[in-house]
Amino acid sequence: MTEPILWIAPGACSLAPHILIHEAEIDFKTVVLSAKAGFPEEYRHVNPKARVPIFQLGDETITEVPAIMTAISQLSPNKHLLGKTNLEIVRTYEWFNWISGTLHGQAFGGLRRPSRFSDDPQTYDSIKAKGKKTVEESFTYIEENLKGNHAVGDTFTAVDAYLLVFYRWGNETGYDMRVKYPKFTGLVMEALKRDSVNAAIEDEGIEFWFAKS
Amino acid sequence: MTEPILWIAPGACSLAPHILIHEAEIDFKTVVLSAKAGFPEEYRHVNPKARVPIFQLGDETITEVPAIMTAISQLSPNKHLLGKTNLEIVRTYEWFNWISGTLHGQAFGGLRRPSRFSDDPQTYDSIKAKGKKTVEESFTYIEENLKGNHAVGDTFTAVDAYLLVFYRWGNETGYDMRVKYPKFTGLVMEALKRDSVNAAIEDEGIEFWFAKS
Repeated sequence: MTEPILWIAPGACSLAPHILIHEAEIDFKTVVLSAKAGFPEEYRHVNPKARVPIFQLGDETITEVPAIMTAISQLSPNKHLLGKTNLEIVRTYEWFNWISGTLHGQAFGGLRRPSRFSDDPQTYDSIKAKGKKTVEESFTYIEENLKGNHAVGDTFTAVDAYLLVFYRWGNETGYDMRVKYPKFTGLVMEALKRDSVNAAIEDEGIEFWFAKS
Repeated sequence: MTEPILWIAPGACSLAPHILIHEAEIDFKTVVLSAKAGFPEEYRHVNPKARVPIFQLGDETITEVPAIMTAISQLSPNKHLLGKTNLEIVRTYEWFNWISGTLHGQAFGGLRRPSRFSDDPQTYDSIKAKGKKTVEESFTYIEENLKGNHAVGDTFTAVDAYLLVFYRWGNETGYDMRVKYPKFTGLVMEALKRDSVNAAIEDEGIEFWFAKS
């Protein structure tokens, strides 16, 4: 089988599977897109949903972060990247769905992509404001629900990689994450010790901290 | 271990795990909430996210449809309710995340719960209109991506149960689903032959078809 290919945009939610594939220690290639102005139209045939990440595994094209992280975990089953027990795996999918749907889709989606929710630009300030409020509620939810430096069980899982993406977006949005969310910061600081996390950040050529943060 | 408890609201997305737990042939109890006016405040302590479904398994409280369906599947592993192969399981999670995030969260969320996206009631007509458009694009996506009467592999999985919920909501919204979406209708007609599907619909005391559909 040829090496799997992960399509990413620097700093996008594709950073999570990018970290995870380093963690899995499997050979892979990346295709790097710029998605700042939206998904490039010329690649829509690869993913009609017009989103990154995309994961090409042999002849199969896989979309949606939780599905891609499942596929990566299957490639290195002994690393238990989705958790070690049945209950941990359930908790991983619970976090995945909330992060993808509420934190990313509803909260940051409203803040950064209001045109997904209305075709009338006059509504965008209101949608962005509500998105920002939901981002803050979501960060509070994370802070209240973390019990240690890992979201699931007592080791690094795909959930830690996924949460880290949105901590970085919080920095980028101008929140003083270290002061406001100490438990979330603890998880991220632990993750930033890992080779996989640093390799993915370096590959993507992005900053983790921002001037304001 | 005591019987697991599934918290549902009739006709809500909790219908999908409700079908699945019948399919799994395990004993369970339900708690039925009315969520028409939103999640009842007096039960917020059970799920601070204020959503159904909720799944209580011993001392564990599990939220998010894909996580609950994972837990139910684990209780009857020989039935392979999330698919038979690694790739099928990946496709199941790909559908789960898209159904939950895009079809439910973004599309029907905009149409039915515009207050999730803005605090200004003057924006709600525009958000509902965009939600309706995204519902239609999503139904077209389903229609174009189904290859037979099952979404994943060649047998019934949790994805079929999940898709059926939104076909019903399409009926309820007034779309002539049978005429507009014949492949989606084929999947649903196949599902409606199953005891599990009929048992859940009967338990919830809901209609599947509506006067207009």
